Amino acid sequence: MSHVRTVEWIDGGVRMIDQTKLPDKLTYVVIKDYQKMARAIREMIVRGAPAIGVAAAMGLALAANGSRAKTKQELMKRLHEAADVLRKSRPTAWNLFWAIDRVLQAAEVATGSPAEISQQVVDEARRMADEDVHANHRIGEFGAALLTDGDVVLTHCNAGTLATVSYGTALAPIRTAITQGKRLRVFATETRPRLQGAKLTTFELLSDRIPVTLIVDGAAGYVMMRGMVSKVIVGADRITRSFVANKVGTYMLALAAHANRIPFYVAAPSSTFHLEGDQSDVKIEERGAEEVVSIGAKRIVPRGVRVFNPAFDVTPVELVEGFITERGVVSPKMLRTDAVL
Amino acid sequence: MSHVRTVEWIDGGVRMIDQTKLPDKLTYVVIKDYQKMARAIREMIVRGAPAIGVAAAMGLALAANGSRAKTKQELMKRLHEAADVLRKSRPTAWNLFWAIDRVLQAAEVATGSPAEISQQVVDEARRMADEDVHANHRIGEFGAALLTDGDVVLTHCNAGTLATVSYGTALAPIRTAITQGKRLRVFATETRPRLQGAKLTTFELLSDRIPVTLIVDGAAGYVMMRGMVSKVIVGADRITRSFVANKVGTYMLALAAHANRIPFYVAAPSSTFHLEGDQSDVKIEERGAEEVVSIGAKRIVPRGVRVFNPAFDVTPVELVEGFITERGVVSPKMLRTDAVL
Repeated sequence: MSHVRTVEWIDGGVRMIDQTKLPDKLTYVVIKDYQKMARAIREMIVRGAPAIGVAAAMGLALAANGSRAKTKQELMKRLHEAADVLRKSRPTAWNLFWAIDRVLQAAEVATGSPAEISQQVVDEARRMADEDVHANHRIGEFGAALLTDGDVVLTHCNAGTLATVSYGTALAPIRTAITQGKRLRVFATETRPRLQGAKLTTFELLSDRIPVTLIVDGAAGYVMMRGMVSKVIVGADRITRSFVANKVGTYMLALAAHANRIPFYVAAPSSTFHLEGDQSDVKIEERGAEEVVSIGAKRIVPRGVRVFNPAFDVTPVELVEGFITERGVVSPKMLRTDAVL
Repeated sequence: MSHVRTVEWIDGGVRMIDQTKLPDKLTYVVIKDYQKMARAIREMIVRGAPAIGVAAAMGLALAANGSRAKTKQELMKRLHEAADVLRKSRPTAWNLFWAIDRVLQAAEVATGSPAEISQQVVDEARRMADEDVHANHRIGEFGAALLTDGDVVLTHCNAGTLATVSYGTALAPIRTAITQGKRLRVFATETRPRLQGAKLTTFELLSDRIPVTLIVDGAAGYVMMRGMVSKVIVGADRITRSFVANKVGTYMLALAAHANRIPFYVAAPSSTFHLEGDQSDVKIEERGAEEVVSIGAKRIVPRGVRVFNPAFDVTPVELVEGFITERGVVSPKMLRTDAVL
């Protein structure tokens, strides 16, 4: 899975792996307008903070590409309309907002005819996809230096190729370390309710022949206490100076790692960092009860039960040993200083 | 559900709720020999430490009742055979071993004809069922004193009527507090892999009209951090002076409660305590991969993935605010002193 692209600009559209169909089948969808892109993000056909950032950028590229604007002003109006729709798709991952702002900024400073500016928007979105892949390989290199032969790495949710354009964030150090000849094994938590660990991370790692053992989320503390895990690496949806928002369950993994003196790393590109943000800026997405009460067509819960289904949680940075970014490994203390990222 | 009996001696057999069929339907099975009782325990038709203790005692009662022994020696031989089979059904809950030893002891000291001794074995098993219900009501009273109007209690797995003969352990204080007029709400964790929280705890609480909100296991830390929970109460499968073995996931709940200064209580009858035990005595049951890789008929995981499926984990007693027993509330420090239970 190291060379597959999860999100890719193709002639006339954006081709994406349909992640709701995995692991049963690896199929692609082609998205041709920004409204459908917003829906694909909301319905998690594409998911993972870096992937939805690039998908949103490409949604703007679709809006530009399909525009019949006769002036730059008309084009910018259309781009801002598309941006508003895309921003409402999912609220937590910072990459989405970062990516939309970056594309709008590129359009803002672009010159030429509306068609030429549109082409520059498309180019910017494609560049962001390439940069994501490059950043992930850098994360791989910096992170691999932290891993030693024989390490057993626990990861949560899916922060691999499928969460990015390619190569992954949390899985990148594992991939790179293995190419360096280190022998590693991985524990994947299944990650309820949507089972991204069970469905996507195992799929990726099996495809790459990386040894993986699946556990339920609640078993993570036990495997850590038993000494079966030497490092924890997770991705992130938003990082500020004081906390990491990531897939629900991350906070308890960080607590368990801390209690058992296991280094807990967060791997993320700089586009995930919103250092000036605070707790009041971040909206933790609450998703529908149906994700919890049914699995496939099978209802597992009695009718009438109330459900609370936050998609993310918040981990204090004090529990993080280091942030593995494309610019190096950064400590929580370094986040407090100015402009490290 | 406060008056239902999960395990009950009836003429010619042991009637038990088939917990594998809940919440879809409330059906009963009647078990007529000890081999089938061992299988029912292993397959979790009956589950929950106090319930399987009484079920094992009643398995011995079935063995005694069905015996054609002509001497006490023959009867004791048969009881020891049955005990060996029942002891191998599930390895973690102390109540199972405690119950078997207690019935064997009762038979050992009994006098009279084999038929009279058999009757005493049946009487002992029935007495243990009644004692369990009584103990749970006492746990309810002692525990209710710890709860105040407006409390929100988080619980894990199912430690209710369905985990005991009736009334429950962790759910008992909630039930009793509500009869005292306190308004309480409950968060139930779904409890992967077997979903006892989603299927059983919600079913019990809905039946009793106690407000319950279901969350995935990984969301427990988030609801605690957000201040949405004021107490945590769980049951237990085995308690020693240094640790609590309980459903996998309990340890991370205890860590999250500790980090957020939320009192973490363990509710269990004295039959769950094995104070002279240590970590080397307890076998943490590892169950099959099929519990994790499929839900109902639906396979959720790619073929070829290795699975580690421990059914329980181990929580250091230092994380426990108090043990709610039928003899009062006991602190971890008190466990260190002699003969408190």
